[in-house]
Amino acid sequence: MKIDLNADVGESFGPWTMGDDAAMFEIVTTANIACGFHAGDPEIMRRTSEIAKAKGVAVGAHPGFADLINFGRRRIMGLTAREVENLVAYQVGAFAAVAGLAGHRMTHVKAHGALGNMCNDDEPLALAAARGIKAAAPDTLFLVMPGLPTERAAEKVGLAYFREIYADRTYDDSFNLTDRGKPGSVLHDPDDATSHVMRMLDAGAIISVNGKTLKVEIDSICVHGDNPHAVALARTLRDRLEAQGVTIARYAG
Amino acid sequence: MKIDLNADVGESFGPWTMGDDAAMFEIVTTANIACGFHAGDPEIMRRTSEIAKAKGVAVGAHPGFADLINFGRRRIMGLTAREVENLVAYQVGAFAAVAGLAGHRMTHVKAHGALGNMCNDDEPLALAAARGIKAAAPDTLFLVMPGLPTERAAEKVGLAYFREIYADRTYDDSFNLTDRGKPGSVLHDPDDATSHVMRMLDAGAIISVNGKTLKVEIDSICVHGDNPHAVALARTLRDRLEAQGVTIARYAG
Amino acid sequence: MKIDLNADVGESFGPWTMGDDAAMFEIVTTANIACGFHAGDPEIMRRTSEIAKAKGVAVGAHPGFADLINFGRRRIMGLTAREVENLVAYQVGAFAAVAGLAGHRMTHVKAHGALGNMCNDDEPLALAAARGIKAAAPDTLFLVMPGLPTERAAEKVGLAYFREIYADRTYDDSFNLTDRGKPGSVLHDPDDATSHVMRMLDAGAIISVNGKTLKVEIDSICVHGDNPHAVALARTLRDRLEAQGVTIARYAG
Amino acid sequence: MKIDLNADVGESFGPWTMGDDAAMFEIVTTANIACGFHAGDPEIMRRTSEIAKAKGVAVGAHPGFADLINFGRRRIMGLTAREVENLVAYQVGAFAAVAGLAGHRMTHVKAHGALGNMCNDDEPLALAAARGIKAAAPDTLFLVMPGLPTERAAEKVGLAYFREIYADRTYDDSFNLTDRGKPGSVLHDPDDATSHVMRMLDAGAIISVNGKTLKVEIDSICVHGDNPHAVALARTLRDRLEAQGVTIARYAG
Repeated sequence: MKIDLNADVGESFGPWTMGDDAAMFEIVTTANIACGFHAGDPEIMRRTSEIAKAKGVAVGAHPGFADLINFGRRRIMGLTAREVENLVAYQVGAFAAVAGLAGHRMTHVKAHGALGNMCNDDEPLALAAARGIKAAAPDTLFLVMPGLPTERAAEKVGLAYFREIYADRTYDDSFNLTDRGKPGSVLHDPDDATSHVMRMLDAGAIISVNGKTLKVEIDSICVHGDNPHAVALARTLRDRLEAQGVTIARYAG
Repeated sequence: MKIDLNADVGESFGPWTMGDDAAMFEIVTTANIACGFHAGDPEIMRRTSEIAKAKGVAVGAHPGFADLINFGRRRIMGLTAREVENLVAYQVGAFAAVAGLAGHRMTHVKAHGALGNMCNDDEPLALAAARGIKAAAPDTLFLVMPGLPTERAAEKVGLAYFREIYADRTYDDSFNLTDRGKPGSVLHDPDDATSHVMRMLDAGAIISVNGKTLKVEIDSICVHGDNPHAVALARTLRDRLEAQGVTIARYAG
Repeated sequence: MKIDLNADVGESFGPWTMGDDAAMFEIVTTANIACGFHAGDPEIMRRTSEIAKAKGVAVGAHPGFADLINFGRRRIMGLTAREVENLVAYQVGAFAAVAGLAGHRMTHVKAHGALGNMCNDDEPLALAAARGIKAAAPDTLFLVMPGLPTERAAEKVGLAYFREIYADRTYDDSFNLTDRGKPGSVLHDPDDATSHVMRMLDAGAIISVNGKTLKVEIDSICVHGDNPHAVALARTLRDRLEAQGVTIARYAG
Repeated sequence: MKIDLNADVGESFGPWTMGDDAAMFEIVTTANIACGFHAGDPEIMRRTSEIAKAKGVAVGAHPGFADLINFGRRRIMGLTAREVENLVAYQVGAFAAVAGLAGHRMTHVKAHGALGNMCNDDEPLALAAARGIKAAAPDTLFLVMPGLPTERAAEKVGLAYFREIYADRTYDDSFNLTDRGKPGSVLHDPDDATSHVMRMLDAGAIISVNGKTLKVEIDSICVHGDNPHAVALARTLRDRLEAQGVTIARYAG
């Protein structure tokens, strides 16, 4: 079995550092890089892309809401599909250009935080995100959640895509992530996270907290970048997967 | 004789309007569109590009400093070449993507305000701007000031370019624009501006306030977008040029 | 009868102008001034306060969400009472200081846009706004909507207050403003707006679109500042009220 | 001998943390708190003030330029005195209000970063800062650099003040801080910084890198908050000063 590992990196801003990107780049094969709206700035985008290039890690744009103070985690009421197209295209275009300055090449896009959640709750917004990506960079992969609106949007819009599961987040019975506010939504223990991932990989399915399953293809595993244990969890997960004969390799060419 | 007319448009922001873009689009052949840093936002960039497309007007990115309150008109101390590369690439990439959403195609880039002034005063910064453009969009034209660092930077970096003179601004003896703070820097009367332009077109040269001349190629005439008389001046200028047999046509394909 | 007229002014930003504040200052007796989050900036706050001082118009802080692009009109999910306290106190304190620079004195506070709407829908948020005002400026009047959470919050927190009705907005049966998205929510005709106001003043009551009434005290009439007809409507309203023997006078000392 | 120790704290922003404020609050007696322009946000301002209150540490506003990405460290060309008045008054008023929410009381103001440097280079700007403070909070102490424009401005404007020296920065022969870009501008070793401070306290004078001295009153010692060794340096400095019989006590009532 072969699988990609992706993480959110480049989430520092100006003089402020977030996460241990250097350590994460030793573990993952794909990096989702913030584009300056919820985190990141042009210099951080470039530096992060330079490191990714040196480490052979694939890079993608990670567009989010223009809401630095809340790190793009607040849902916005009244958001229109056109606005999502604009936000996504703008950030994808900006990141592609800055990755170019770093001598690297953007190969995917993933929607961040509340933007991502809203897209996975609401197919018109997912379609808008897919159209935004397609307008900005038609040959780019959309990193989607299998069984959810983002996957269907990629299909409908005719955008190539790959599918991720989350290592440290549980799923509710709609096969979306359990809301962060609910108990048990986050798996803090690396062993728990690894078992959770292995069960889903073995089953070829999303498995909800109540044991419901949805057969899906799984191409990548997301390990979060902005919590203190992110690196330890990612390291443990990678080691365990490799010990069980799984090959870790980037999905994008 | 054939000449392009360019103007700065898309300089509204959120709920605030600046300039009369609709009128300007009836006159000019090339539009420099703000990219969200000193003015503009993703929706305004898109809407402006849609109108340009409908009117057959060429569009380009108009990157500036991230300084809305001062409209990108303040010089920043300690600015590095790397920072200029980042700023320019980010905004050019963002604009190209949003123009794509509008069904249009970015064909040029012009540096705005203090960023443009600093590039025309300082060749390392002009080179950085040219590298930023090249990384983001290698086939894009750089709209430069002839005889100044931006023109030399385009040459050195291997970027195609075209050259503009200003209709309503006078030139000092270094063949750069007379500082806005100085008396006589701005020509408010359409007749004065038209004569000023015609003298330079006839001479094939920049003519300074003291009568010094610098032979240059002239491909485009910039008419400003953000002063109350901009539209009247542009209209008069276009009519006079056409009356004298000059053909007004966009430079970019 | 004596009544105050209030309007939202100081809603320009940096180089962008909104509304005709000079004309509005000839008509109203109380000005709600944006504090830099949804509109306004320190210089505009100061200049607007200077003009208000010269015209004898009372000034108050008009705090809103930090959302320039949407002019503070978007509701934000997950907003906490503590966050409302912070937002309000910060902006009220900032405005009071800048009004001081202008030689004027802040005498009231009104919540803007989506922040105001959310406070009038949700008493915990209204209480938070009142606490924020009290912490920043305990002797300041809260400009509230009678019968709604803002009025009750002022009572409970022990903040002096005055009560406004809207000239150009209709009321639903909960005696809150009809949602802007609904037909008939805005009265564009000055005659309609004047009759609407006179009926409510005569009845001493809010009158809903369905004719329901809620007896309230009315101290001020709000005439909007940011629509093109705002000034004409305010002028007509003032003239009619005066013709009917109503005295227009500022509420705050 | 009795001396105050001050540090810059509250320099986190949204989800990003800077410095170890908890540790610093165990050491210093006065805290300069960022006001949301170069760092800080309303919640961080409040939380930091709450901790200061609990620890008995005096709090003051630390206004800076609206330039998060550069942490307010870039000088801005064309800055006017009026603009400095506005910036300072706005931030001082905002901080005073938020400190009130935290149950604490603002007792001083210090200018941050490039704004502070520009004030200490240019008396008209220092006077503007003092006027901004006076308009916002006339009974507030201005934390100034002795012998430099900020001290003279406080005198001229009639603002109470106290005077600080820097523990980990050297002075040039104009008795201003050695430019950060120059070698030897920062003392990284706690022993060096302590000796540097003790020499100046004993001499009652600023001592430049070339041994020039300027007799001044010294009321407070600034220990920086945003470098990794800041806490260790502050701790060592405090211990050494106390070992030599110096009493560490807040200056403001």
